[in-house]
Amino acid sequence: MGTAPRAHASLHSSLITRDVVSSFARLDFASPIIERLIVAQQSALTPQAEDFPRWYQDVIAKAELADNGPVRGTMVIRPYGYGIWERIQAELDARIKAAGAKNAYFPLFIPESYLTREAEHVEGFSPELAVVTHAGGAQLAEPIVVRPTSETVIGEYMAKWVQSYRDLPLLLNQWANVVRWELRPRLFLRTSEFLWQEGHTAHATREDATAYAQHIQLEVYRDFLVNVLATPTYVGIKPPSERFAGAINTLTCEGMMRDGKALQMATSHELGQNFAKAFEMRFQSSEGKEELCWTTSWGASTRLVGGLIMAHGDDQGLIVPPRVAPIQLVILAIKETPEVTAVVTKLGDALRTAGIRVEIDRGSGSFGRRVVDWEIKGVPLRLEVGPRDLEQGHVILARRDTGDKQSLTVDTVVSTTTALLADMHDEILASATMRLETNTHEVNSVDEAIEASSGGFGRISWDLLVDGGEAQLRDQAITVRCLQRADGSLPVDEQESGLVALVAKSY
Amino acid sequence: MGTAPRAHASLHSSLITRDVVSSFARLDFASPIIERLIVAQQSALTPQAEDFPRWYQDVIAKAELADNGPVRGTMVIRPYGYGIWERIQAELDARIKAAGAKNAYFPLFIPESYLTREAEHVEGFSPELAVVTHAGGAQLAEPIVVRPTSETVIGEYMAKWVQSYRDLPLLLNQWANVVRWELRPRLFLRTSEFLWQEGHTAHATREDATAYAQHIQLEVYRDFLVNVLATPTYVGIKPPSERFAGAINTLTCEGMMRDGKALQMATSHELGQNFAKAFEMRFQSSEGKEELCWTTSWGASTRLVGGLIMAHGDDQGLIVPPRVAPIQLVILAIKETPEVTAVVTKLGDALRTAGIRVEIDRGSGSFGRRVVDWEIKGVPLRLEVGPRDLEQGHVILARRDTGDKQSLTVDTVVSTTTALLADMHDEILASATMRLETNTHEVNSVDEAIEASSGGFGRISWDLLVDGGEAQLRDQAITVRCLQRADGSLPVDEQESGLVALVAKSY
Repeated sequence: MGTAPRAHASLHSSLITRDVVSSFARLDFASPIIERLIVAQQSALTPQAEDFPRWYQDVIAKAELADNGPVRGTMVIRPYGYGIWERIQAELDARIKAAGAKNAYFPLFIPESYLTREAEHVEGFSPELAVVTHAGGAQLAEPIVVRPTSETVIGEYMAKWVQSYRDLPLLLNQWANVVRWELRPRLFLRTSEFLWQEGHTAHATREDATAYAQHIQLEVYRDFLVNVLATPTYVGIKPPSERFAGAINTLTCEGMMRDGKALQMATSHELGQNFAKAFEMRFQSSEGKEELCWTTSWGASTRLVGGLIMAHGDDQGLIVPPRVAPIQLVILAIKETPEVTAVVTKLGDALRTAGIRVEIDRGSGSFGRRVVDWEIKGVPLRLEVGPRDLEQGHVILARRDTGDKQSLTVDTVVSTTTALLADMHDEILASATMRLETNTHEVNSVDEAIEASSGGFGRISWDLLVDGGEAQLRDQAITVRCLQRADGSLPVDEQESGLVALVAKSY
Repeated sequence: MGTAPRAHASLHSSLITRDVVSSFARLDFASPIIERLIVAQQSALTPQAEDFPRWYQDVIAKAELADNGPVRGTMVIRPYGYGIWERIQAELDARIKAAGAKNAYFPLFIPESYLTREAEHVEGFSPELAVVTHAGGAQLAEPIVVRPTSETVIGEYMAKWVQSYRDLPLLLNQWANVVRWELRPRLFLRTSEFLWQEGHTAHATREDATAYAQHIQLEVYRDFLVNVLATPTYVGIKPPSERFAGAINTLTCEGMMRDGKALQMATSHELGQNFAKAFEMRFQSSEGKEELCWTTSWGASTRLVGGLIMAHGDDQGLIVPPRVAPIQLVILAIKETPEVTAVVTKLGDALRTAGIRVEIDRGSGSFGRRVVDWEIKGVPLRLEVGPRDLEQGHVILARRDTGDKQSLTVDTVVSTTTALLADMHDEILASATMRLETNTHEVNSVDEAIEASSGGFGRISWDLLVDGGEAQLRDQAITVRCLQRADGSLPVDEQESGLVALVAKSY
């Protein structure tokens, strides 16, 4: 066997070996099942159990989600990947607007001097900055930084716009690209340029800022993650060691990927008065006193696409939850007869009218190849329309997540599909929730926490980590992902007694 | 009179002088009409007839559309300005998708070497580039250019993705920021960073590329301009001197601003095989031959907001056409009595349910001040709800464009508003069309063309400009905005006989 590493790897993923497949192929045995096995073999992804990071790279390439950009660490988001991002944007944007924030746009370029005004902030971001030194054919008097985040420039303008307590709260958001130079880039998870939304708000009191950051974390991010991305997370606050540079408190949603590692999905930061001091954001209170604002910032990025891939995908490829799927159902014409063509067109129209995102694959390749490709892309439902089934008035509906297939009559396709898409969201969420719970272990020592982190999360009293425990974990590449109250709710700060820490390896 | 230049300027705009206003003010005469005159005086914009560019700056500041950014030439788009841009984006995006293009995202950073592969392209853009020389704390081996446009990087990836004629046409679009260093920046019109969409397509034949560029120019851009922005334009092709750097043909929509100058609103470029050669975009034809692709690119930017301001605005401020208005109707509570509050809330809900974008101004300032501020913002309709009118079951509906007011009963507000918003679009478009036609003059010599361009467009045979006429115009800062057929339709190229040129001064 001339086993290139990849071919070898894929042998483990299947009950049949390459030799068996080849034998069938030589027989020219035209059974669609055999053909599909052959195709599956040819296009196999590295199995997750064998090499999860490689599976991740494979699925991004084969589902045509993204490519590496020409400049190290940058990313080309291909139409199918961007279609997922567009759905994420639309759903987040609606929730952000419902939270009262308005969209605006601040410049890509920030004077270097702005960054230095907040000491922790500049220290945190300096190693990751991209700097423009020449523009318009000449050297610049002051170097310009490509924004790694926009607290500083937005702080400068908020200071101009806020005069009185009547101007508060000031609730802004922007959809933008930011640049943080990455030495170990990974598509969607860590790229030198990424797309995100960043919210920035100013408030009259600390209590109001705290309440708003919590509202964003729970009602925007957690709600989106649960109800759109079908992704359960632990919501908590970061320990001081993991806070955003310049924040007094960072709130996070931590998801569990299918290899048991954590991914930080979206964060909100209470910035206290740090940026208000640095940018002189003052207002006249209702009692006529001049006071400093309290600010927050919060963001979610194209990293969410990485989270979607790793939280749900399996050895056959992506599993895209229906509400975020650019294509919710693909209609496959098994063979283009006049009857098939007519039914495919009619069903496509009927499903679109019912508000379902449909793609029709009249296909030029083999049926087996096309099935495998749509499975890799994780399209929730696949409707197979062939001449033989049509003689009985039937079509076949297949679920991507469970692989279940059902035969149904043409006139029940729309109602069945609508109901199934709703069920699938709930069931994908339920599966992910079960994985999260099953792979989170209550532990009582640092050693046990290290063991729990080999394929999941450890849940441990924060008190056990405060004196050196956190450092011990870090030596094993394990971090405190977040702190929660014992009942799983969001604490106000890490000073509360009785907090528990969720610890894990992470992306 | 201590007349600062601005105070002096505003005297011309009103029948009453500052002294008269001051006299009334001293009388503490509480009539709303007088109060409104006083407010109008205080917040007056520079009249258009006096100094159009200054009017433009004033209205951007007072309508809170945008601010200058901290780095020269950059722009902060404030929520109201961004709300207009969001509507523009949504409407353009729907048309782009209807034209079959899919959204994707390509990196901000382009290796400098890419730019140099197409000779005309690099020559055109070199003077405007911003260059990153340091990143991640180190000097870069190869300088990186911040994209001024993305033909080069997209060309590189299209070359990878296109193998066969079956992969064509490849129709992509991206929403992105781009950077072109501007020495004479002007908010929305020319900024060093701007937001836009850029479409990029590859085709198997020149005919297909030409047809697609025309489709975009007519069915995406012109349709959007007419049916959303209520802006008539001349659609034509650029003369060779005004083409995009690297194009063989540039299609344009040229609008007329209220000072008679032209603004290029959106363009499509036939790139021939120039970029296909530079990036080796080859495909196997249906006959099995290897051939070079034919490509197009096309874009519309935040400049459209500038066009909206200057095509419709008047001395009272913006006039935002209803379909692009972030707020279509503002409800002003004249005085907050329990009856007023109840009606305002009820009408707000009813109008929103009818799909109208409504804002409620319960207001803390004076009524006159609030009216003037909403007029500056150009909100199409203003509904005034006061206790005295309510006693008769009436409210007052005022149109921003004509200033017309009508008294109507509360139960007819929704139906009247819906009908009026549709009418207003048509009437704003009709007014702009009348201005475009009235201020376009048929001329028969370069001298006449120069005269016509003092406050409008000249329409002249292209034959009269080919031998030196274009240069003579250019000496007077007049350019050929576009070439059309005599019947106003779009020519294929400038070689067609009988073409007419539209010439004007421009932004």
